[in-house]
Amino acid sequence: MKIINKAILPPGFEANGVASGIKKNNRELDLALFYSQVPAKGSCLFTTNSFAAACVKINKKNLKLNKEFKAILANSGNANAFTGKRGMDDAMKIIDDLADILKVEKKEVLLASTGIIGKRLPVVKIRSYLRSLVNGLSKEGIDRAKYAIMTTDTFPKELTIKFNLGKKSITLCGVAKGAGMISPNLATMLVFIFTDANIASVALEKALKEAAEISFNCITVDGCMSTNDTVIILANGLAGNPVIQKNSYAFICFKNALKKLCLDLARLIVRDAEGATKFIQIKVDKARSFKEAKEAALSIANSNLFKTALYGENPNFGRIVAAIGASGVRVREDKLKIKVSPLQRKEIKVNVILNQGKARALVYTSDLTPQYIKINAQYN
Amino acid sequence: MKIINKAILPPGFEANGVASGIKKNNRELDLALFYSQVPAKGSCLFTTNSFAAACVKINKKNLKLNKEFKAILANSGNANAFTGKRGMDDAMKIIDDLADILKVEKKEVLLASTGIIGKRLPVVKIRSYLRSLVNGLSKEGIDRAKYAIMTTDTFPKELTIKFNLGKKSITLCGVAKGAGMISPNLATMLVFIFTDANIASVALEKALKEAAEISFNCITVDGCMSTNDTVIILANGLAGNPVIQKNSYAFICFKNALKKLCLDLARLIVRDAEGATKFIQIKVDKARSFKEAKEAALSIANSNLFKTALYGENPNFGRIVAAIGASGVRVREDKLKIKVSPLQRKEIKVNVILNQGKARALVYTSDLTPQYIKINAQYN
Repeated sequence: MKIINKAILPPGFEANGVASGIKKNNRELDLALFYSQVPAKGSCLFTTNSFAAACVKINKKNLKLNKEFKAILANSGNANAFTGKRGMDDAMKIIDDLADILKVEKKEVLLASTGIIGKRLPVVKIRSYLRSLVNGLSKEGIDRAKYAIMTTDTFPKELTIKFNLGKKSITLCGVAKGAGMISPNLATMLVFIFTDANIASVALEKALKEAAEISFNCITVDGCMSTNDTVIILANGLAGNPVIQKNSYAFICFKNALKKLCLDLARLIVRDAEGATKFIQIKVDKARSFKEAKEAALSIANSNLFKTALYGENPNFGRIVAAIGASGVRVREDKLKIKVSPLQRKEIKVNVILNQGKARALVYTSDLTPQYIKINAQYN
Repeated sequence: MKIINKAILPPGFEANGVASGIKKNNRELDLALFYSQVPAKGSCLFTTNSFAAACVKINKKNLKLNKEFKAILANSGNANAFTGKRGMDDAMKIIDDLADILKVEKKEVLLASTGIIGKRLPVVKIRSYLRSLVNGLSKEGIDRAKYAIMTTDTFPKELTIKFNLGKKSITLCGVAKGAGMISPNLATMLVFIFTDANIASVALEKALKEAAEISFNCITVDGCMSTNDTVIILANGLAGNPVIQKNSYAFICFKNALKKLCLDLARLIVRDAEGATKFIQIKVDKARSFKEAKEAALSIANSNLFKTALYGENPNFGRIVAAIGASGVRVREDKLKIKVSPLQRKEIKVNVILNQGKARALVYTSDLTPQYIKINAQYN
């Protein structure tokens, strides 16, 4: 497995990013297009927020119609969430235009948005940039696209993994937008993954679900769930490997590479959390099940008291104890062990041993700092 | 109903507070005793944290043995939580001594602690102060006791309500310790309520449960659940009213007074929340059930993004929308209405109308401020 700390699109994928004026600063990239020259199998994961954004609703509909896609259009600066029927119409108009220009079917286009909630998309502006967005598609365009999905992120999150399946080389490339808030709204995680692997739809779906469970579902910055969280993987099959079926040896190889990709992108999101001064890994060991281990770990990770203690570099294991006890996981006081690495470092490891079973979970978070409050209180 | 913004003990109750040296500053009151001259019916509510403190475990045991109590011993500065069997032994030794001095049975003594987690109680110190604590008992001693239960609270929370049942005057008096952290540990809510009402045990229990549900269970400062939260009510019957039975007219009168007392004490706790600059009331209207209304309201109240927005005085209804959507309550986008009062004031009212039913819940919280982080990060 070869890991490259940069997004390099697999064969058959192209991308582009433009500044369409959704953001107040007209010079900032805010509209990204990802394109597959051949139909690519697609699998997605979405927020469970009841007020899911228009893009989430449209993608869910498209996923019922077909399993192959050719494009993802993503914008930052506006979430198109809580915008009702008009928000849906806005999004559909943009898809109509884009499908025309790309000469693809509407149901082959996926959408993602991040930004302010409750405001309508500037549809005219966006439509006027679609043609130049398409004309500028290239393999190298990923370097513009990865910036166009950013909000208050301070660096783009990108990674490429290459591995061999028999004599074929498979590439997995991912870009993500992290848990930073967009002025003036809420954190959204967007992740786009591209691979040339030839893989069955059910296998792709299973691999993504399992990889997300130990990566994107194991990070928390402020415990706030967005209306727009989206993870999309497209697999175009151009690597030419025999189709990967669920539970085969090739599936395990693919899944391991995908897990690594997702976990590293998730860690990058936490590293760039707003106002953070610490990167915190919480490992809960010897739990009865992965579910319980994760619940206990997330309860610690979401405790404001724990997060401020780490910011203050004060060892305070009582706050860890209280958070575990409040998690709802059955635990025994006489079996619990807690270890915390020195707090003066930028990377902190918390190890909780429940001594009740064999399962383990790893969760990542950041500290809670005055800077987090400043960023989220002082916007305009 | 007459409301007095001060703790005035009903007939038959006495209290006292001393500085026993549990806190580092030896001059600070840290040990409180509440005493009933006659056996008083008792009802309690406790934290659901799995790592409940020794005092919580002992009280639960005593409540199984009998329904009448004569004393509550409460200390601040040390939670006696996560201290295992030795913590239980420590607490039992103190109860043994106190019961001897008071000439009551051990099972008639209730305990409450708040403070640092995971450290043993200074048993020798505490025992050496028990006799002077008992000797100094008086009706006016409540003015020392209410300070002895405080941690980082900036003022004592106290209230007295008087109302008539037939020709008898009933007094309800409550003191509380709020959601401030003790150096260096976690918020604990302690509430002690004293009444001279003559009331059946089942009725007392029912009234306390219902009153707590709309008061202490409807406030949140940082969403962190303590290992020591305790609410105790003692009713000594000295008012001489005919015994109040469940669901009678007298019960409704008593319950209404108790609800008012609990709600006002709960509001005082939120007003004194650490670092807070705003007092926030969240009302969720027209929900399908009280449970759903409360879940939606608490989801908003516990959102760090919402709380920082109010600190920054930035109207940001997108964060309210996202928090409701994340609550797990089934909601409909096209029916939701949100109103927020002007943010420049110290008291903010958020009104969410779900338009799905007839139930309502009121929840109280504070904003999240740099001062909260300072208090909880910088201790020693």
